[in-house]
Amino acid sequence: MENFQYYTPTKVVFGKGTEDQTGQLVAEQGCRKVLVHYGSGSVVRSGLLERIYRSLDKADIPYVSLGGVVPNPRLSLVYEGIELCRKENVDFILAVGGGSVIDSAKAIGYGAANDGDVWDFYEKKRTAQGCLPIGVVLTIAAAGSEMSDSSVITNENGWLKRGYSSNYARARFAVMNPELTMTLPKYQTASGCVDIMMHTMERYFNRCDNMEMTDGISEHLLRTVMKNAEILMSEPDDYNARAEVMWAGSLSHNGLTGCGTDGGDWASHQLEHELGGMFDVAHGAGLAAVWGSWARYVMDAAPKRFAKFAVNVMGVAPESDDTMTAVKGIEAMEEFYRTLDMPVSIRDMGIELSEEQMRELAEKCSHFGKRTIGCIRKLDTEDMYQIYRAARG
Amino acid sequence: MENFQYYTPTKVVFGKGTEDQTGQLVAEQGCRKVLVHYGSGSVVRSGLLERIYRSLDKADIPYVSLGGVVPNPRLSLVYEGIELCRKENVDFILAVGGGSVIDSAKAIGYGAANDGDVWDFYEKKRTAQGCLPIGVVLTIAAAGSEMSDSSVITNENGWLKRGYSSNYARARFAVMNPELTMTLPKYQTASGCVDIMMHTMERYFNRCDNMEMTDGISEHLLRTVMKNAEILMSEPDDYNARAEVMWAGSLSHNGLTGCGTDGGDWASHQLEHELGGMFDVAHGAGLAAVWGSWARYVMDAAPKRFAKFAVNVMGVAPESDDTMTAVKGIEAMEEFYRTLDMPVSIRDMGIELSEEQMRELAEKCSHFGKRTIGCIRKLDTEDMYQIYRAARG
Repeated sequence: MENFQYYTPTKVVFGKGTEDQTGQLVAEQGCRKVLVHYGSGSVVRSGLLERIYRSLDKADIPYVSLGGVVPNPRLSLVYEGIELCRKENVDFILAVGGGSVIDSAKAIGYGAANDGDVWDFYEKKRTAQGCLPIGVVLTIAAAGSEMSDSSVITNENGWLKRGYSSNYARARFAVMNPELTMTLPKYQTASGCVDIMMHTMERYFNRCDNMEMTDGISEHLLRTVMKNAEILMSEPDDYNARAEVMWAGSLSHNGLTGCGTDGGDWASHQLEHELGGMFDVAHGAGLAAVWGSWARYVMDAAPKRFAKFAVNVMGVAPESDDTMTAVKGIEAMEEFYRTLDMPVSIRDMGIELSEEQMRELAEKCSHFGKRTIGCIRKLDTEDMYQIYRAARG
Repeated sequence: MENFQYYTPTKVVFGKGTEDQTGQLVAEQGCRKVLVHYGSGSVVRSGLLERIYRSLDKADIPYVSLGGVVPNPRLSLVYEGIELCRKENVDFILAVGGGSVIDSAKAIGYGAANDGDVWDFYEKKRTAQGCLPIGVVLTIAAAGSEMSDSSVITNENGWLKRGYSSNYARARFAVMNPELTMTLPKYQTASGCVDIMMHTMERYFNRCDNMEMTDGISEHLLRTVMKNAEILMSEPDDYNARAEVMWAGSLSHNGLTGCGTDGGDWASHQLEHELGGMFDVAHGAGLAAVWGSWARYVMDAAPKRFAKFAVNVMGVAPESDDTMTAVKGIEAMEEFYRTLDMPVSIRDMGIELSEEQMRELAEKCSHFGKRTIGCIRKLDTEDMYQIYRAARG
């Protein structure tokens, strides 16, 4: 078992009607002016944004707004947000939306609290020394950004998707009303469920002995998301199913499922980030498309772990050797993805990768040969190419 | 599923050698002077206190010390600590020990940060408006006070044991090195394991539908503690077993195992608190002594829940009706307590309760008829008396 730190300072306010507490929660943070950050028109159309404004008004908190965040949030809007914060003396950012909005809010927070180009942090050239405090009203269960330390931004200049993580950006509070996720289209719900599962699976697949407490929590989380994701495919308004998935989303990425491990593998995420940067695919769908190919490529380095996953999570009957059990587990997960209408190859997303594009993805993912990814098996540019090739379909 | 709040701001620094980071962790809090609070000679004899002092010296942090905390920590020492904090301008309290030391530190923190008598909070006469910041170096896995909002103090004037809970007292950090718990006597280790389990069981037994995520985490936590408690009876130096139990102790009482529930029952704790106040028994042992009698007294009000516990936690084969399954689960838990040499009656602790004492315990526990306890079944003074009577043995 490895030493670990666990730090989740975000105050979660979970349940029906909790968005009406937003103004009060912001007021508790003692700030002067809020930037309300959001995405597309859906929070406007649903009336949520209006309710949030009323809640801020009631708490006598002045605010400015910046909408327009898109999936795979863009650096250009981050720059705009930083400028707005400086001009308006904003000292608190309220993200109303899903992972893209929260990640964009974190990036704006870094930029407003530090000198120089915020992209430096995402390029790992510098370390942030602070971040404006962030609050969240969550509308999509997926990224787990509401409790995580991470933020992923896409730079349109070269379509590079890069992540930066720091405890400074952990949200002060997260308002989580599962009802707000009921109107999500089926594809986005499914994609969110895959994303949630992958945050736990990335940590679960590692090379150390791990911790029983952590393994059991992870396995239960995965089984719970699978069960409730299937319910949501036919009953999108099932409050309890929405709530289970939403809470699992936060626990999956707040650090809990990594305690006592070596940090996890994360290669699937890195491989998907480049796909998302190049093709703007839904993150969860992209993860589903590459995971099986990654798993088959690396499983020989940790057959016991993959076999444990197969038995405890996927309910596979153990075979005479771990590798056979492992393969059945991978197949069962792909079968599950199919039941959610999630892709299990890149072609399933309607993308026909050319030879050149696969090479380009691998080059970008390895930062042009400057890094390897993964820990189950360390992957270099050629390995990445082989996995993209297998995942092409 | 109920609405809930989840707030665990404590930074956990877990693993071998982590106590050497204490000075640095205190320094990050930006305080001027620390009160180092501890219990008996064991932290002196082991050299731990000296290492902590060195770590504080290295970080240039001045400190004063106050030892002498005993199990069921006393109000008189809390008063002494408050006076010392005021005299020495202490602005941070470092608790080096187990639950008693941490609870005492929290009470001192309340007293130093608020005017008037600190006991008022424990008597629920007033609400604390703040608390000095607390840090923890944990040496006993049991109470979960290192991440919880609660503190239990015994007033020698009447031997009343009372609890007070507030987010103000959540520790800023908790240093958790499982090695520090290896020298604990077997009885204390077992008692700690019971305490840990009971923090989850108190929440698990409730009258609402609950949450799948929470139920599964709770059931896994209980199974993990049971398994590793048994290992520790013969292998007290098993690092992984110590670590599983220690981490389970924090997760059991930081709020995670109560998410989505109605808060839980807590009657066993209330019944034990009076026993602890009157006889100074080890908390976990006292809980083991009353739990079975409580469970049999209330199980008819929630047979499904008790049956689920029996099957998922105790591994009992389901009977044709829930009540029969429930009884088998209670018996299995008592059998488990016996394997740890824990009492399953008050007599097992060497205490022969008189009729008068049982009446007195029930009167104190109901605050002289002013409150009921429990939620599975609301218990009045007479119910409490009946449970003490059944638990007498």
